[in-house]
Amino acid sequence: MKTNAYAAQTAATPLAPFSLQRRELGTHDIAIEILYCGVCHSDLHTARGEWQGTTYPCVPGHEIVGRVMQVGAHVQKFTTGDNVGVGCMVDSCRTCVNCEENLEQFCPATVFTYNSPDKHTNGITYGGYSDRIVVDEAFVLKIPPNLDLAATAPLLCAGITTYSPLHRNHVTTGQKVGIVGLGGLGHMGVKIAKALGAHVVVFTTSSNKVADAVRLGADEVVNSKNAAEMQQHLNSFDFILDTVSAQHDINAYLFLLKRDGNLTQVGVPAEPLSLNVGSLIFGRRTLSGSLIGGIQETQEMLDFCGKHSITADIELIPIQKINEAYDRLVKSDVKYRFVIDMASLQQDS
Amino acid sequence: MKTNAYAAQTAATPLAPFSLQRRELGTHDIAIEILYCGVCHSDLHTARGEWQGTTYPCVPGHEIVGRVMQVGAHVQKFTTGDNVGVGCMVDSCRTCVNCEENLEQFCPATVFTYNSPDKHTNGITYGGYSDRIVVDEAFVLKIPPNLDLAATAPLLCAGITTYSPLHRNHVTTGQKVGIVGLGGLGHMGVKIAKALGAHVVVFTTSSNKVADAVRLGADEVVNSKNAAEMQQHLNSFDFILDTVSAQHDINAYLFLLKRDGNLTQVGVPAEPLSLNVGSLIFGRRTLSGSLIGGIQETQEMLDFCGKHSITADIELIPIQKINEAYDRLVKSDVKYRFVIDMASLQQDS
Repeated sequence: MKTNAYAAQTAATPLAPFSLQRRELGTHDIAIEILYCGVCHSDLHTARGEWQGTTYPCVPGHEIVGRVMQVGAHVQKFTTGDNVGVGCMVDSCRTCVNCEENLEQFCPATVFTYNSPDKHTNGITYGGYSDRIVVDEAFVLKIPPNLDLAATAPLLCAGITTYSPLHRNHVTTGQKVGIVGLGGLGHMGVKIAKALGAHVVVFTTSSNKVADAVRLGADEVVNSKNAAEMQQHLNSFDFILDTVSAQHDINAYLFLLKRDGNLTQVGVPAEPLSLNVGSLIFGRRTLSGSLIGGIQETQEMLDFCGKHSITADIELIPIQKINEAYDRLVKSDVKYRFVIDMASLQQDS
Repeated sequence: MKTNAYAAQTAATPLAPFSLQRRELGTHDIAIEILYCGVCHSDLHTARGEWQGTTYPCVPGHEIVGRVMQVGAHVQKFTTGDNVGVGCMVDSCRTCVNCEENLEQFCPATVFTYNSPDKHTNGITYGGYSDRIVVDEAFVLKIPPNLDLAATAPLLCAGITTYSPLHRNHVTTGQKVGIVGLGGLGHMGVKIAKALGAHVVVFTTSSNKVADAVRLGADEVVNSKNAAEMQQHLNSFDFILDTVSAQHDINAYLFLLKRDGNLTQVGVPAEPLSLNVGSLIFGRRTLSGSLIGGIQETQEMLDFCGKHSITADIELIPIQKINEAYDRLVKSDVKYRFVIDMASLQQDS
C-alpha cells in the first residue's frame, strides 16, 4: 500500500517528502487514513539523532488521528469510517507480565510507532507523518465523537503521559496538585487535573504564561524563581506532576509536598538531577517516574477527555512547515502543540 | 532528681562526666533507671557539631532500655520494675494531623530525646548517656520479655528505621528484597526483611562482610562494585532498602527494581545524590524516604522482634570508652552497634 510521508534521511537533513509501502492487511489489521498527527518533542529528538539509535530514513509521529479505510477479516472492534487513534505503540509481545497487566509500554518487546524493529517488513516502523498506516486492532483507539479530531491527536502521547500519573495517584476533588512547566505536557496536565477536581497550581518561570495558565484552568500560578512565593506553599501539595525535561531544581518542589506526598517526573532531563535525599526523608515523600500508559488506560483517558470535553490547544500546520515547527519547538514557541494537517501531503504529489 | 551522665561541652571536646537534674515526676511521667543505651551515628554527628544546631553541653543517646523506678499518679500503662524503652522522641504536640495519625516523628513540635527544646526545664533535652530519665508514658515502649535488654536498645532507632519502610511497603514471603549497606541499620534490615519472609540480597562493597551477611540471614550477597554481578539482578527486586549515608550511585540500584518497585532511602548523605530520572521513568519506579516511625509503630516493631527473637548484634562498652567508640564508628569498625552498659557510670562517682 503506497504511502506518502515526510522523512529525515540523516540526522543533519531536514524532513522531506518520502514514499514508503505499508504492509498488506492481516486478518487483525486496520488500514487508517491519517488525518492529523501531533508533533511531540520526541519526534524531533529522534529525527535529529539527539537520542542514540535512530535508523534512517526516519518517519516520526506518534499522535495519530485518522479514519478507518479498511479492516482485516477478523477485526471486531472497528469498521470502515470509524474515527480512530494510534499512539506511541503499535504492537508488543502480548504474553509477558507487563502485557498481561495491560501495561504494554513496559513490555521488553514493545514495537513503537516509529524507529522500532518491524517484523512485518524486516525494517523499522514508520510513524504518523504519512497519509496511511496499518496497525493491529489491539493497538488502535476509539475517538469520542464529541472531540475535535485535530486537537485530539496530542492526547495520544501528551494526554496519556499526564493522565496516567494523575489518575494512578488518585488525584481527586479537594486535593492540591502542582503542575511544573506549561508546555505540551504541562498544559494537558492542567486540564486533566482540573477535570479530576483538584485545586491546580501551575509553576512556571515565564511571566507571560500566567494568563494562559489561568485560562487553561489553573487556580493559582507560582513563579518558581520567586523564593518567597515558593515558601508559601511548603508542605502543602498532595501531588506534583513535573513535566520539565530541562535541568532544574527538583528539591524545591519536593519540599512543597505534604507528608507522604508524591512528585512524578514525566520529563526526561538529558543530565542527572541533583537530589537532596533529606527532602524525601523528612516528610516521607516519594519521587516517581511515569511512562505514557497501556492501551487500556489510553482508551480510558480518551473516554475521560470525551466526557470532560478536553482536547489540546494546538497550532495546525501543513507538513511543509514541519522543519520550521521543529525550530520553534526548540525555542518553546508553541501554544501548546503543533498538529500536522495531513491533507497538506497532497500538495507535494 | 540528680542524674549522672556523659556530655560533650563543645564540638571539639570529648564526652566526659556531667551531672544534670531530671524533672520532678508529673502525673503522666515515668522515671526510668537506664540500663543500656545504643550508640547511633546521629549521636556522634550531634555531639561533634557536624549537623547545625547543637546546644552544649550535649548528652546524646536515643536507644534507651531501662527499668521503671517510679510512676506518676495517673500513669496507666506501666508499673515499677517494668522493662521499658525510649527511642528518638520524648514528646510531641499531640494534636496536629501527624500526631493524630500516630506519626509523631513528623509533628512540627516533636521533642527529640536530646538536643531539643525542653518546656519542662526551659533548656534542652538530655539523652540516654545517663543513668536516669523522666519521660511521659505516651512515649515509653514496652520491651518483650524474651529479648536480651542490651541487644534490644538499638531497636529503638536502628530497628524502627528499617522496620517502618519494610513493613509499610508490604514486604512479605516470596518477594526479593535488597539491603544496601551492612552497618547498624543494614544489619537490622536483613534480620527484619528475613523475618518478614523475603528473599534477602545484601549489597556491600566489603568482601569481608559476605560471611557475616549470610550469618545474619542474607540469601545472597552482591558486590555492588562488580558490574557483571549487578547486571544479573536487573529488573528483579520488589523493594530495596538503602541504608548508606555516604555518597553513592543510587541509579545502579534503581535499575535493579522491577516495574513499580520502590527503593527507600534511610541514610542521609551530606551531599546531594545524582539521580538519573530515566531509572524511574522506564520502569515506573519510585524512590522514597523514611524517618524512624511513630510510637505505635515502634511498639509494633518491638512486638514483632519479640515474636521473631530479633535483636541487634552489639558490642557492649563501658561509657568510659565512648570517645574511642566514636572514633571506631567513623571507620565503620563495629559489628554492628555499640551499646553502653550504663552500670559503668558508677565507676566515675
